Amino acid sequence: MTTLTGPPAPASAGERGTYVELRSDTFTLPTPAMLEAAASAPLGDDVYGEDPTVARLERLAAGLLGKDAACLMPSGTMANLAAVLAHCPRGGKAVVGRESDLYVYEAGGASVCGGVVYEPLPNQPDGTILLSDLEEALTVDRADPQFAVPALVALESPQNRCGGVPVGPAYLAEAAGLARRHGAALHLDGARLFNAATALGVTPAELAAPADTVQICLSKGLCAPIGSLLVGEAGAIGRARRIRKLLGGGMRQAGVIAACGILALTEMTGRLAEDHENAARLARGLSGLPGLELDPGPPATNMVFFRVRDPRHTTRSFIDAARERGVRMEELGHGRIRAVTHAGVTTTDIDHTVNVLRALLTPPVPTPGGGR
Amino acid sequence: MTTLTGPPAPASAGERGTYVELRSDTFTLPTPAMLEAAASAPLGDDVYGEDPTVARLERLAAGLLGKDAACLMPSGTMANLAAVLAHCPRGGKAVVGRESDLYVYEAGGASVCGGVVYEPLPNQPDGTILLSDLEEALTVDRADPQFAVPALVALESPQNRCGGVPVGPAYLAEAAGLARRHGAALHLDGARLFNAATALGVTPAELAAPADTVQICLSKGLCAPIGSLLVGEAGAIGRARRIRKLLGGGMRQAGVIAACGILALTEMTGRLAEDHENAARLARGLSGLPGLELDPGPPATNMVFFRVRDPRHTTRSFIDAARERGVRMEELGHGRIRAVTHAGVTTTDIDHTVNVLRALLTPPVPTPGGGR
Amino acid sequence: MTTLTGPPAPASAGERGTYVELRSDTFTLPTPAMLEAAASAPLGDDVYGEDPTVARLERLAAGLLGKDAACLMPSGTMANLAAVLAHCPRGGKAVVGRESDLYVYEAGGASVCGGVVYEPLPNQPDGTILLSDLEEALTVDRADPQFAVPALVALESPQNRCGGVPVGPAYLAEAAGLARRHGAALHLDGARLFNAATALGVTPAELAAPADTVQICLSKGLCAPIGSLLVGEAGAIGRARRIRKLLGGGMRQAGVIAACGILALTEMTGRLAEDHENAARLARGLSGLPGLELDPGPPATNMVFFRVRDPRHTTRSFIDAARERGVRMEELGHGRIRAVTHAGVTTTDIDHTVNVLRALLTPPVPTPGGGR
Amino acid sequence: MTTLTGPPAPASAGERGTYVELRSDTFTLPTPAMLEAAASAPLGDDVYGEDPTVARLERLAAGLLGKDAACLMPSGTMANLAAVLAHCPRGGKAVVGRESDLYVYEAGGASVCGGVVYEPLPNQPDGTILLSDLEEALTVDRADPQFAVPALVALESPQNRCGGVPVGPAYLAEAAGLARRHGAALHLDGARLFNAATALGVTPAELAAPADTVQICLSKGLCAPIGSLLVGEAGAIGRARRIRKLLGGGMRQAGVIAACGILALTEMTGRLAEDHENAARLARGLSGLPGLELDPGPPATNMVFFRVRDPRHTTRSFIDAARERGVRMEELGHGRIRAVTHAGVTTTDIDHTVNVLRALLTPPVPTPGGGR
Repeated sequence: MTTLTGPPAPASAGERGTYVELRSDTFTLPTPAMLEAAASAPLGDDVYGEDPTVARLERLAAGLLGKDAACLMPSGTMANLAAVLAHCPRGGKAVVGRESDLYVYEAGGASVCGGVVYEPLPNQPDGTILLSDLEEALTVDRADPQFAVPALVALESPQNRCGGVPVGPAYLAEAAGLARRHGAALHLDGARLFNAATALGVTPAELAAPADTVQICLSKGLCAPIGSLLVGEAGAIGRARRIRKLLGGGMRQAGVIAACGILALTEMTGRLAEDHENAARLARGLSGLPGLELDPGPPATNMVFFRVRDPRHTTRSFIDAARERGVRMEELGHGRIRAVTHAGVTTTDIDHTVNVLRALLTPPVPTPGGGR
Repeated sequence: MTTLTGPPAPASAGERGTYVELRSDTFTLPTPAMLEAAASAPLGDDVYGEDPTVARLERLAAGLLGKDAACLMPSGTMANLAAVLAHCPRGGKAVVGRESDLYVYEAGGASVCGGVVYEPLPNQPDGTILLSDLEEALTVDRADPQFAVPALVALESPQNRCGGVPVGPAYLAEAAGLARRHGAALHLDGARLFNAATALGVTPAELAAPADTVQICLSKGLCAPIGSLLVGEAGAIGRARRIRKLLGGGMRQAGVIAACGILALTEMTGRLAEDHENAARLARGLSGLPGLELDPGPPATNMVFFRVRDPRHTTRSFIDAARERGVRMEELGHGRIRAVTHAGVTTTDIDHTVNVLRALLTPPVPTPGGGR
Repeated sequence: MTTLTGPPAPASAGERGTYVELRSDTFTLPTPAMLEAAASAPLGDDVYGEDPTVARLERLAAGLLGKDAACLMPSGTMANLAAVLAHCPRGGKAVVGRESDLYVYEAGGASVCGGVVYEPLPNQPDGTILLSDLEEALTVDRADPQFAVPALVALESPQNRCGGVPVGPAYLAEAAGLARRHGAALHLDGARLFNAATALGVTPAELAAPADTVQICLSKGLCAPIGSLLVGEAGAIGRARRIRKLLGGGMRQAGVIAACGILALTEMTGRLAEDHENAARLARGLSGLPGLELDPGPPATNMVFFRVRDPRHTTRSFIDAARERGVRMEELGHGRIRAVTHAGVTTTDIDHTVNVLRALLTPPVPTPGGGR
Repeated sequence: MTTLTGPPAPASAGERGTYVELRSDTFTLPTPAMLEAAASAPLGDDVYGEDPTVARLERLAAGLLGKDAACLMPSGTMANLAAVLAHCPRGGKAVVGRESDLYVYEAGGASVCGGVVYEPLPNQPDGTILLSDLEEALTVDRADPQFAVPALVALESPQNRCGGVPVGPAYLAEAAGLARRHGAALHLDGARLFNAATALGVTPAELAAPADTVQICLSKGLCAPIGSLLVGEAGAIGRARRIRKLLGGGMRQAGVIAACGILALTEMTGRLAEDHENAARLARGLSGLPGLELDPGPPATNMVFFRVRDPRHTTRSFIDAARERGVRMEELGHGRIRAVTHAGVTTTDIDHTVNVLRALLTPPVPTPGGGR
C-alpha cells in the first residue's frame, strides 16, 4: 500500500487514505535512506560543475553501464530529448518505434526544439523493429536534398507499450551495427533498463553495450524522487550537457536529488525481481477472470496489460470503479489498461487487486445465446 | 521525344540528343504559347502585391477549385510546407501518409521550419489511409502535455508512390469530416490534381471541395516551367502568404511565370487523358515481358511502376541500359522503377520504349530447373 | 564562510577547505530546516499533478506575487524559456534587454526551441530600456510579412549585468502599458525579485503587478537547492506548464525540492537586507583601493562590480590570485569582476575579502611620469 | 516613367497610368532582350540539375565574383536565409547589423527555420559595424553552454537603411579576418553589390573577395524579373543548395528566369552609374526645399532619404499627396522616406519629382515667432 512519506501528514491522509497504486512505477516514493542521504550529501553548484554528489552519481552510472560519461537530467523526457539532439543535426531524421515512449509521450520535442524529423516504424510484439524495416528507413541517397538524412535509431528496452517486454542485447547489437553502417547512432531509452536486465539475466552494461547513449530513469522502479541519467560516449554526453543548459535542465545543488539517485543505483536494482514476480502473480490472478482479456504471455517485467470485454463496463468506468475500491490503474491508450508493480506494491496488494477486479466482473455475464 | 525549346542550341543538342523522357512529368517544357505569354504579360512587383498577371492566375486557380483564394509559390514543396505551417502551430502534429511525397521527398521541412511533428500512417494500395488509423491518430487527450496535438491531416491525390492512384472525393470528404471532428484541418497535396480529376471524371472543384487547402503544381503535366499554387480558404491562404515571405518564396515580377501558369490551367488540363492513355499503352506493352513485374492493375493516371526480376540486371543496371538506348526512367526507391507519361511523350515514344525494354529482357532467362 | 552541508565529508573538505564564495548567490546551500522539510514532505507524482507539496509551493508563490497561478521549473532558464514560448508563437519577436540574463546567458533557447526572434535593445545604466526604444521596436506593420511581429517584452529586475540594480514598479507599469498597446505581453525575469523588492521597499506583489508572467528563483539568495517558479495569469501558466513537459522539466516527486522552496519563500526573504548591507560594506571597503575601478554608485542589491586597473594584473590573474587566497569571484564578461553576497557570506568574510584584495594591489604602482 | 511591358494592356493602363516609381528598384521590369532570352533559352529540370541555362548563369556569377560556385534562388530573402543556415548550426549565433535588411525585413527566418540566434549590432552611419563591437560579440567562452556560439558575421553592401552607402573591401577584409579568428564565417548581403562596386570603383570580385558567401540580387537595379544568387565557396554553396530544396526554392525549368539573369549580369551592370547620377540629381534638387530634411551627404548609390518637417504634412500624408501627383515613394520606417532610382526612372522623371515635391512644400510655412 502506498502511504505518504515522513511523519503523519493528517491533512493529506484525510484526503487520500491508502490504496494500491498500479498506475505507474513513477509513483514510487523515496526510501528513508534516500531522504537521509539527501539531507546529508555534500553539495555544490552543479551548473558550475561543482556538486560532488552529482559527480559521484554520474561516475557511478557511467561505470555501471560501462560507458565514458553520464549527465544527470531532471527527467527522462529531457534525457531522451538531449540524446536525440546530440545525435541529430537540424533536419536529421530519428528512426524510432511507432510504440516508443520517446515518440508517443514526449510531445514531439525533437521536432520542436531541434528541427529533427521522426520516422516511426512498427514495433513487433516483442518490442523490436524489423531489421528490414530499419534497413529500408536508413537507406536514403544522402546526396539527394529531398531526403532528411537518418542520424539516429532510438530503441527502448523494456518496451513499455509492447507490454514491458525487454529487448535483448543480441538484437540491439544487430540494430546498432546496421545503424552504424548507415552513419547513424543508436540511442537506447532504458527508462527501466534495470528491469530489462533483471528479466534477461544480463548485466546493465551488457544491455547498454551496443548503444552510443542510454537513458536510465532513477524515479521509476528505483524509487528516487527526481531524475534520469543520460549515459554514453564522451562526445555525445558533452553535447547533451550543452543542450541540457539550453533546455533549462541545469540544476544548482542537484546533489540533493543525486544522493537519492546513488542509492537508487546501488540499493534498489536488486529488488526489481520482486516486482516482476508480483506482476506475474497479478497476471495469473487475472487470467481466469471472465470479461477480461489479458495481453498474451506472462509479463516479462513489471507490467500487466489487459482489456475489459464486459458489457457492464467501458474502459473508463472499469478504471473508475476499481479506483473507488482502492485500486488505481490507468488506460495506456485505445482501450488497454496497464497495471504496474513497484516497491510500493506488496503481494497482499496484488491479491487484493485480484479480488477487487474479480468482484467488478462477477457474476459473469451470460454468453449471448448460450442460455438454453 | 523531348527536344530543347527555342532555336537550335547545338552545344546541348550535341550533349543530349533526343530521347524518351519518362523520369517525371516535371521534365515537361513550356509550350510556345506559354513563352509568348511570359514575354508579353503585364508585370508588377508581386512582393508589393502589384503584379496583375499573378493576381489573375491566383483568381483563376481559386475559381477553378471553388476556393476563396490562392497564392503562387516557387514550388510544390513550398506550397505544401506553407500549408502545413499555416495549419499547425509549433509543436502541432501533421498526420500524413507514410508514402506521401510530402513526407518522403520534402526533407522534413515542417519539422525543421515549423517545429511540427509528422505522424506518418500506412497508405493502402488505393492511396487512402484507413479511417480507423486516422481516427486513432487524431484521438489524443488534448489536455495532456505529453501529446503533440494533431492539427492537420494531409492527403495526396493522385498518390504518386501508390502508383499514381487517384483518391476520390467521397473518401476525402470522410477524412475531412473526421479531421474536423477532432479539430484538425485537411490539406490535399494535389500536385497532379488535374490528372486525378481526369481519371475520376470529376471536376477539380469537386475533388478539392473537402479540403481546407489544396496544392496544385503548374510544372508537372501542365507544362509550365515554374510554380505551384496553394489554394484554399482565405484565412489559411493569408497565413501561408506570410510564411511564403519568411521562407523566401516572394518573387518580384512573378507575372513572367504566372503567365505560363494561366495557360497551364486554361489550355493544358484537357489533354491529360492522352497521357493516361499512353501510360495504359505502356503498361499493356510491358505486361507480357518476362522478368518484369508490373504493379497490379492498369495505371489510373500517368504512371507505370514495375520491378525487374531478371538475373542479368539490377534495378540500376537496367535503368542505365535503358538510358543508353534512349529511354530514361528512374527508381522511386527500394527497387521500383517509375515511368511517367506527359506532353513530351508520344505514342510512338511509348512503342519505342516497349521495344527497348523488351530487348533488354530477351531472350528470357530459362526458368531454373525447368528444362525437362 | 562556505562549508559543506551535513556530516563531515573528509574527501571534499580536503579538496576544498573553506573560502569566501562571492562568485554567485547560486552557491548558497540549503538550510538545515530545508533539508529536514525535504525529508518529511508529503509527496506524489507531480507529472500527474499529485504532489501536494508542489501544489502548496505553487499556491504560495502565486499568492505572494498576487497572480493566478504558478508552475515549478527545474531552473530559471527553463522558467524564462517557457514564458517566452508561452507568449510568442513561432516567428514572433521577443524584445529583450541587450544586457539581460535571458538574452546573454540562456543559449538563445527561444530561437532554438521556439523559432522566436530576439530583438535586444540597449539597457540604460539603471537597468531600464528607453521607452522610446521599446516603442520603436514594437511599432511594426503587422500586416507586412517581412516583419517578425513583437509578442513579448521581457524585462529583468534587478538587472544583474547593470550592477544588480532594481527596476521599479512605475517603470514596469509604463513598459507594460506600452507593450499591451502594441499587442505584446510583459514578462519579468525576477530571478532575484525579492532582492529588488527589498531594495525598493515595495512588496513582491507590487513589483510583479505590471507583468503578465514573472520568474522567481528559489536557488539564489533564497538558498533552496533547486528550482524556479513561473508565476502569472492562468492562461500563460497553463501554456508554460505544457511547454515544461516538452522541454523535459516535468519532475516526479518534486515535493522534495518544493519543500525547500516553501521555506525559501517564507523564511528567507526577510534576511536579504543583510546581503545588501554586506555588498555595501564590500563596496565601501574597496572604494579606496588603488588600481580598482568600482562601478559608480553604491550597490543597490547584493552585487559589487569592478575592474582591475593595475599593470601587475589581468582580470584573470587577479581573480586567480584572490582565489588562491580564499576569495572566489568571477568575471562577468569583458573585464568586469562581480562579487555577490548571500547567506553564506558574513560580515567577517567581507572584511577578509577587502584585506585580501587590498594586499593584491599594494603597494600602489607609481603613477607613470609622476616621479620627478 | 514606368509603363507596363508588352502589348497594350488596357485594363491595367486604365488602373495605373504612368508615374514615377521611386519606391524601390525592385519595380524594374525585364528588358525586351531578357524576355526574348527567356523565350528561347535551352531548358531542363533544374531540380535534377539539368537546366543548362541555370548552370550557365551560376557559372557566370561565380566567375564574376571570383568564387567557386553559385546557386540560383527565387529571392534574396531565401539566398540570405540559406546562407545563414549553411553557416550556422542549430543554436549558433549570427552577428548582424541592427539596420541590415537581413535582420529587419526577412521575418526572422533564421530563428524560425534554423534555430539560429540573431545578435544585432549597431550600424555606423557609413554602414559598417565597429570592429570593437564585432570583437566583443564574437568573444565568448565556447566551452560554456550558457552562450550561443557565433558562427557567422553578416554584413551588407551597400547598406540600404544607412542610405545605400557602400561598405568597401578594406573594411570587409578586416571584418572577415576578425570573424575567422573567432571561428565564424562572413556572409555579404550584396543585394545591390554592383551598385556598391560601381560607387567604389572596384570590381565585384574585389568587393566579394573577403566573404565566404555573397548574395546578389538579379531583380533590383539589374532588371531581371525574378531571382537572386548565392555565390561562394563550394562547401557552403553545397549546403545552401540542400537547404534550398527544404525551403521550397527548387524550381523546375528555371532557365526561363536564369536567361534574364544572364543578361542582368552581362548587360545591365554598366548602366548603374546613371542611376547614381539620378539619385545625386534628385538629392541636389531636394536639398534646397523648405520642410524637407535630407540625410546628410550626397547619395553614394541609388537612394535618397529624407524626412518631412512641415507642419502641413505627416510622413504618410506627404507620401500620399506625392502619389496622387504621380510620384511614388515609401517610408522606410519611423518617418524616413526613401526614393530609389533605377532603369525605369529618367532624368526627366527626377526633375518632375523635384517639382512635385516642391509644390507640396510651398509656400514655406513661416518660422514660428518670426513674425515681427
